[in-house]
Amino acid sequence: MAQNVQPVLKRLEETTERALEKLFELLRIPSISTDPSYGAECIRAAEWCAGFLRDAGFDVAVRPTDGQPMVVASQHPKGEKTDGSRILFYGHYDVQPPDPLELWSSPPFEPRIVERQNAGPFIRARGASDDKGQLMTFLDACRAWLDVHGNLPLAVTILLEGEEESGSPSMLPFLRQNKDDLKADIALACDTGQWDGETPAITTMLRGLATAEVVISGANRDLHSGMYGGPAINPISVLTRVLAELRDDSGQVQIERFYDGIEEPASAQLRQWRELGFDERAFLADVGLAEPAGEADRTVLEQLWSRPTAEINGIYGGYTGPGTKTVIPATAAAKLSFRLVPGQEPRKILAGFRSFVEKRLPSDCKAAFEGETGSPAICFDTDTPPMRAAASALADEFGRPAIFMGCGGSIPIVEAFRSELGMDSMLIGFALNDDQIHSPNEKYNVSSFLHGRRAWARIIDRLAGGQ
Amino acid sequence: MAQNVQPVLKRLEETTERALEKLFELLRIPSISTDPSYGAECIRAAEWCAGFLRDAGFDVAVRPTDGQPMVVASQHPKGEKTDGSRILFYGHYDVQPPDPLELWSSPPFEPRIVERQNAGPFIRARGASDDKGQLMTFLDACRAWLDVHGNLPLAVTILLEGEEESGSPSMLPFLRQNKDDLKADIALACDTGQWDGETPAITTMLRGLATAEVVISGANRDLHSGMYGGPAINPISVLTRVLAELRDDSGQVQIERFYDGIEEPASAQLRQWRELGFDERAFLADVGLAEPAGEADRTVLEQLWSRPTAEINGIYGGYTGPGTKTVIPATAAAKLSFRLVPGQEPRKILAGFRSFVEKRLPSDCKAAFEGETGSPAICFDTDTPPMRAAASALADEFGRPAIFMGCGGSIPIVEAFRSELGMDSMLIGFALNDDQIHSPNEKYNVSSFLHGRRAWARIIDRLAGGQ
Repeated sequence: MAQNVQPVLKRLEETTERALEKLFELLRIPSISTDPSYGAECIRAAEWCAGFLRDAGFDVAVRPTDGQPMVVASQHPKGEKTDGSRILFYGHYDVQPPDPLELWSSPPFEPRIVERQNAGPFIRARGASDDKGQLMTFLDACRAWLDVHGNLPLAVTILLEGEEESGSPSMLPFLRQNKDDLKADIALACDTGQWDGETPAITTMLRGLATAEVVISGANRDLHSGMYGGPAINPISVLTRVLAELRDDSGQVQIERFYDGIEEPASAQLRQWRELGFDERAFLADVGLAEPAGEADRTVLEQLWSRPTAEINGIYGGYTGPGTKTVIPATAAAKLSFRLVPGQEPRKILAGFRSFVEKRLPSDCKAAFEGETGSPAICFDTDTPPMRAAASALADEFGRPAIFMGCGGSIPIVEAFRSELGMDSMLIGFALNDDQIHSPNEKYNVSSFLHGRRAWARIIDRLAGGQ
Repeated sequence: MAQNVQPVLKRLEETTERALEKLFELLRIPSISTDPSYGAECIRAAEWCAGFLRDAGFDVAVRPTDGQPMVVASQHPKGEKTDGSRILFYGHYDVQPPDPLELWSSPPFEPRIVERQNAGPFIRARGASDDKGQLMTFLDACRAWLDVHGNLPLAVTILLEGEEESGSPSMLPFLRQNKDDLKADIALACDTGQWDGETPAITTMLRGLATAEVVISGANRDLHSGMYGGPAINPISVLTRVLAELRDDSGQVQIERFYDGIEEPASAQLRQWRELGFDERAFLADVGLAEPAGEADRTVLEQLWSRPTAEINGIYGGYTGPGTKTVIPATAAAKLSFRLVPGQEPRKILAGFRSFVEKRLPSDCKAAFEGETGSPAICFDTDTPPMRAAASALADEFGRPAIFMGCGGSIPIVEAFRSELGMDSMLIGFALNDDQIHSPNEKYNVSSFLHGRRAWARIIDRLAGGQ
């Protein structure tokens, strides 16, 4: 029942200022899910999203979980048959912690528009890109469509969670308990980015993620380094020696069977990636680096889109305050994460890591493993009707073809949709590489926000059969 | 003018309960010098010591410095010639931070007597051994002597500082400005220990100490490990790889020229150490360890008394809070200390460490070095009249000969007395290896306190010419 998308696009243009105001309201809520003291703020963000969708014309419920609540909203074409098309849109209203605060140029929860010379303006705030700015592009496209037409051209369910930045512990049970409400033809998720400022993209390969924390212990208490230094084993030294062997000089991860089951990208795929003209030097120079690290014989794009990693995300042990304390600590610890590619199983990788550490432990040390989580990588077929529809809508909006690309990050929800609801996902987002998500001064280009809203209106139209 | 020490010993016996009460008063003051928020408590501890000495009969001044004040007290034999004997006693009224608090069996600044089966009682508190319990053995011996005789048999100056646990930044300028007040025939310091519970000791060799902090930086900001993991260098990984090479598999420190200038202990000395019957296994088992670490071809005593070390006392970088943050941090850092032996120069060791790190840095990383301090090792002649006098006083008290021993720790004040005042030190203390100084549940045996008070009364008598 393809409705005309043109009046919706016009409506979006007319309401840009109001849309930015609404986004800023959401950005002002410090919905940090990893820190329990911000629990009430997460609930406030959920209620805010529910209110926005209710005002737009959705049926909305804020559904409790053992953790942060889920927002579930739905809108069905009134009294008309929709030839069965139904989509589930996914986003998250929680954000990363903003620390270190002193590195922000303006307070992370006081969003502002920052003008730039030789580039368009951007919105600076924690969550501006990941994921509040992104999810609002979809929510506001629906709002405009409902403003104009009173209903959407296909059945849309929206699911917003508040635990994406803390491992989504409530998501799997929630999906299992609400299959009927949530199952759709395809899921749309907006955590991903454009290829560059002018080129849209659909992400069809996502690395998986496994995490672990290792705590190495030596003596039964902290020791004075004068009284024991030398003969008493130092868990910090042991930890550095173990972790130093995690990768060899050519960047190969030394965990046994780490690379088992990984398929090399097809040569046609590799050729396509090379033809993208990705500027490795510029990508690294943007963050102050000059030399690609990691696997010596792989390009940067190949590494990010098709190769696994083993990274140390945090390390701590002994005295870390001001000045000196001549202590040999009883323990030292590190937090690690592994980006996974298709063929790798998180459980096997984590078991491999435990065995890697244990094999290298001196007899006087013990290792404890905590915080293990895992989700596998995922890869979608690009030659399906929804993929073709979305790609052509994006091409209409940007005036150039959309790229099918990989992504170095992980979106465990995509695996959950597949395993629990038997549903594939399309990953379309408008973030850019320099958005500094998870870092100080996170931003979202105003152009990303404007393109995003219009692109979603077009995608909704195309998925509903519009031409 | 040798006075009889016997009535002083009797007086000490009669006043034990009162002496413990006074020590507890001092232990209740949380004089943590490394944490600026405890500045007022340091001053309170200084004033408390000054009050005690004034009550005992000393002339006392609390002298301001740029940091914590010095307590200077003196007492001269009234109107009599003392054949020139003058001693300077040194101690410190500041203590280590008590963290981690949760590992204490009772609050660190609420001292208590703990009874044990098959062993005598001890005092549990931060500072019980290091250094409040130790310094009070000397102060209370003087108090008893003055109670009985009205004056001391030789000129005694007492110098108490409040910055020993934070590197003594005010000490050198203070010594330079107060040479005449402080210069004596010999200095007595009480930071050291007995050989074991029944055997007294004079420490004649002290390891020196050099400290440094290294901060390694990579990208110009924290990065998302999904977006950059692999191609972007990780400063935590670099830090672990650099520090892992600090010692080789046989425990040899790999800093260039680290061992230059070190003399091997004389074979007679080594033989004497071996004859002490030191139980390496028991020493390590006491802290939950089984295997001597460090240099593979050296005994534990040899390592502690005659060999240098390179220890990592603290390490930190990236996300260290609860849960996970998939970050590649911009920096990672470690705090190190080096125990030095005679022949090593702190400046050269620190320069060697900087060069060790810089040689191993990938081109995309930088290293900054902070918090460098250094004091060399020290070694005293054991065949001098004061050494012989002190050794025989200790033998009288314990009923067995005193051991001349080395010490793994550093007492930079001893080097300062030598360089600024041209004065040797005698290091006599009553701590035991299991006192857990710098750790939770620090303790001081009541027997150490009682032996210590009586031993100092005897040493004062012998140094004044008593037989």
